Amino acid sequence: MKQSQTLVPTLKEIPAGADIASHQLLLRAGFIRQTASGIYSFLPLGKRVLRKIEEIVRDEMDNIGANEMLMPALQPAELWKETGRWNAFGLELMRMNDRHEREFALGATHEEVITSLIKDEVKSYKKLPLTVYQIQSKFRDEQRPRFGLLRGREFLMKDAYSFHESYASLDEMYDKMYEAYSNIFTRLGLNFRAVIADSGAMGGKDTHEFMALSEVGEDTIAFSDTSSYAANIEMAQVLDQADDDQSGEELLPLDKVATPNQKTMEQVADYLKHPLAKGLKSLLYKVDETFLLVVTRGDHQVNDIKLKNFYQATTVELATEADVEEILGAGFGSIGPIDVKNKEVDVIFDFAVRYVVNATCGANQDGYHYVNVNPERDFDPEAKYADVRFVQEGDPSPDGKGQIQFARGIEIGQVFKLGEFYADKLGASFLNDQGRASTMIMGCYGVGVSRTLAAIVEQYHDEKGITWPSQIAPFQVHLLVLNSKKDEQKQLADQLYANLKAQGIEVLYDDRTDRAGVKFADSDLIGIPYRVTVGKRADEGIVECKIRVSGEQSECHKDDVISYVKSLLS
Amino acid sequence: MKQSQTLVPTLKEIPAGADIASHQLLLRAGFIRQTASGIYSFLPLGKRVLRKIEEIVRDEMDNIGANEMLMPALQPAELWKETGRWNAFGLELMRMNDRHEREFALGATHEEVITSLIKDEVKSYKKLPLTVYQIQSKFRDEQRPRFGLLRGREFLMKDAYSFHESYASLDEMYDKMYEAYSNIFTRLGLNFRAVIADSGAMGGKDTHEFMALSEVGEDTIAFSDTSSYAANIEMAQVLDQADDDQSGEELLPLDKVATPNQKTMEQVADYLKHPLAKGLKSLLYKVDETFLLVVTRGDHQVNDIKLKNFYQATTVELATEADVEEILGAGFGSIGPIDVKNKEVDVIFDFAVRYVVNATCGANQDGYHYVNVNPERDFDPEAKYADVRFVQEGDPSPDGKGQIQFARGIEIGQVFKLGEFYADKLGASFLNDQGRASTMIMGCYGVGVSRTLAAIVEQYHDEKGITWPSQIAPFQVHLLVLNSKKDEQKQLADQLYANLKAQGIEVLYDDRTDRAGVKFADSDLIGIPYRVTVGKRADEGIVECKIRVSGEQSECHKDDVISYVKSLLS
Repeated sequence: MKQSQTLVPTLKEIPAGADIASHQLLLRAGFIRQTASGIYSFLPLGKRVLRKIEEIVRDEMDNIGANEMLMPALQPAELWKETGRWNAFGLELMRMNDRHEREFALGATHEEVITSLIKDEVKSYKKLPLTVYQIQSKFRDEQRPRFGLLRGREFLMKDAYSFHESYASLDEMYDKMYEAYSNIFTRLGLNFRAVIADSGAMGGKDTHEFMALSEVGEDTIAFSDTSSYAANIEMAQVLDQADDDQSGEELLPLDKVATPNQKTMEQVADYLKHPLAKGLKSLLYKVDETFLLVVTRGDHQVNDIKLKNFYQATTVELATEADVEEILGAGFGSIGPIDVKNKEVDVIFDFAVRYVVNATCGANQDGYHYVNVNPERDFDPEAKYADVRFVQEGDPSPDGKGQIQFARGIEIGQVFKLGEFYADKLGASFLNDQGRASTMIMGCYGVGVSRTLAAIVEQYHDEKGITWPSQIAPFQVHLLVLNSKKDEQKQLADQLYANLKAQGIEVLYDDRTDRAGVKFADSDLIGIPYRVTVGKRADEGIVECKIRVSGEQSECHKDDVISYVKSLLS
Repeated sequence: MKQSQTLVPTLKEIPAGADIASHQLLLRAGFIRQTASGIYSFLPLGKRVLRKIEEIVRDEMDNIGANEMLMPALQPAELWKETGRWNAFGLELMRMNDRHEREFALGATHEEVITSLIKDEVKSYKKLPLTVYQIQSKFRDEQRPRFGLLRGREFLMKDAYSFHESYASLDEMYDKMYEAYSNIFTRLGLNFRAVIADSGAMGGKDTHEFMALSEVGEDTIAFSDTSSYAANIEMAQVLDQADDDQSGEELLPLDKVATPNQKTMEQVADYLKHPLAKGLKSLLYKVDETFLLVVTRGDHQVNDIKLKNFYQATTVELATEADVEEILGAGFGSIGPIDVKNKEVDVIFDFAVRYVVNATCGANQDGYHYVNVNPERDFDPEAKYADVRFVQEGDPSPDGKGQIQFARGIEIGQVFKLGEFYADKLGASFLNDQGRASTMIMGCYGVGVSRTLAAIVEQYHDEKGITWPSQIAPFQVHLLVLNSKKDEQKQLADQLYANLKAQGIEVLYDDRTDRAGVKFADSDLIGIPYRVTVGKRADEGIVECKIRVSGEQSECHKDDVISYVKSLLS
């Protein structure tokens, strides 16, 4: 394609409000433009990359027998009301009324539409399992759209839905999807991890998020430094084992001491001169309608999601200080798990508490703490221990291999065992092989196509611009003519352009009349993997070839250009 | 693809509310399903056809140097207000507010978005001309969605926009687009006509609509029976010539006769015993603020659009009877063009009036008509003649070749010289080669992708189902195994499926356990061009090959299937 005839509006300056590399570079290199907050147009180069990503996604979906379809963006409100998501989705769901005042949602996702369709069309186990997908624009009214394509309000997604007669069949498709997603992100050249994630409120089972590793990611991943274990920080398991063996220490007698005005864990530790890990932190929670005292080590943090999942609760929140006073007889800083038997409260200890020796905890009396607390001796012998804290860097990996490290990630995909939630709400049942009506079991699977494009730029750029992996670069070769007014340069470049195209090689030909410096800078910014420059030595038939990512540069005879480029591409 | 693993929900009965063949057959053959009124999901077979149409459109767009991009569906209201279309578009424009109560339109078309974008990015004539396109869902809130994909509320379109420094450059791209559109619809196998159409209110110049000929079309096309001339019936020109030579007739003296209670043209003709064509029909219009008496022959119809274009008017409407009485001194049935010199009214005669001899017209006196009216003798010598009537079948074609015939058409595409309207409203100017600021000149070009799919079905079906042209059929071969429980049939069919796929041939393999009759009926309904049936003679290696459209049928040895299919496809 001739650059003079397409729209590649490059920018020298970093546009205001663009805080991260992908946002800055996609704007500067002329791949996207903002139409409204969180809403972008993909310019020709951006659209080319999108299509290449789509083709890889499509190929992997077709390989596992998923069927492409296309559902509408306009979705009747009734369907969303049947699943309860018309309210539950909140302000993020965009809504509108048609001319007859009928309510519609703009598709944020398509579980309702597809389940309703499958309910009408599939009545027998003979037509299951069935997996469909689409690649389509989605709408979510983010409170604060930011980071360009990473958090937008209209974005491109591949969403897939599978329908099954049994959980075993769902598990099988889930594994295939997991594999297909791994293939997709590998083929896209991404450094990513599939992480265990929280299945949330919609009654689902297993779920994994696919995370592109990046400093600008909004999620924290906990992963093993030696195995493939990875989980969202909220979900990363902690083992029931001591991380610091104190078992040799002599157990001292329990004692109650005054700790006047020492409210925080840090203050108490300083006052009693022991490390933070020797203090026991007690927090009173309200889990659904029950008060629960959660005890962790002072250097650990309670993980609400683990609490919620452990108790299969709907809501988990901290109790008010008034509740704390009333139930435990002391304020926030002085409560603890000893002598609570007759109080209306359950107690749960984090696993790590099991291994402390001569620890400290609040005495349920303002200004007093117990010291030399030893769980096995001083706590209820039937005390409940569980994994209720956040993992920390350095914790052993739950698969027993290596230690946990943290990284930031951009969520680019998710696979999710939905189970029966949607089929149940929308009445999608089928006759099983026994002739009995049974609720369909579902999975759903998403790839953020436009977000993935941005994630690739986060991983593939340098100080000069983008460095596209060749399989998704908008073009394979950037052909530059340095002085298009010189006949010998122009003729040689025109000829190379024709020859490269004739070989099926995708070429962007910078035939503009701009200065050489502008062309080089734009070329580095746009980031096409291989550059062929026709300059001063055109009359000798010599051009310059350069590899964008390495900067490797060589002179090349015009007759060797095609074979050189082909060798790079293969 | 195995039919047991995809979603092809065929229906035996015609679904309620589906009145035309394409709507019925696309539903019955399992290509689409309705999600809400005028809103459809494309099932796997439907999506495959859509993609094939898209690829042909894309190919022809790329061939003429148009650049693919992707603009958002959500469009800020401000842009539509700047062009005045926020109001002008009326209820068809779907609207919504975001969480911050900012107004948005759902893209019904993208002139505003693209012009605003180009305004910011293109400042010099050096970057012109520029042509971009996208293939994307559009939204229009039709008052009465009907005919399935022909008049929907969410539909797939290819829309293109071109920007130019001169009308000559626009003309050049317009011609290329016209050619590309002709190629597209030819490649799709459609019987179509490019017709001259009305450029409407938005200040545009030339426009052609591409019409697929079909009885169910909502538009009437006037075309020459011997040349390529074709126009929308509103636009079809009528020549200034006699269609019936009355010049030999003797001119009789003008006379005023009583025509008591004869109000309509037919009544007066009956009463005075002359053919309808001898009566002159006079209608008083209000053209913007001016009253205009429009005179045609009694057997002709006034064409408002021609009046509007002739006077470059904004509104054209019939005057009230009160206005008629006040201005001409008589009621609707008795007005005419004689003696109106001192009345506050202009008169225009249709060309055909010039050639009448001894005609009749109202006398501007209730219950009286003039007879033996002869224009040259009896009308103002400066009388204005113009083409202000609807063409009729049998009229000479305006290119002088053949006669006009009528046909019904489905609008599947349009090319349009927009001129400066949008660029002017949105301030899209550029520096021309003289360094002076100049307004961009635009064209826009649309293909209704999903509507085209339906138009193809209207032209390609028989009483059994769809008869897809091979280049856009969802699959090329439909492979049927009649009794999948018989090993020799199943094995042979599995083997043929693998062999055909290995040759890159697209095969839908009906491996279901249904009865043979069901499979044959479904296969005819779905309409894949070539069918290979594995049945009773499987043990001999003999299968049946059938061509869907002709019904031609032959037995074939299993080893010859591939070469037979390839010969059909080439």
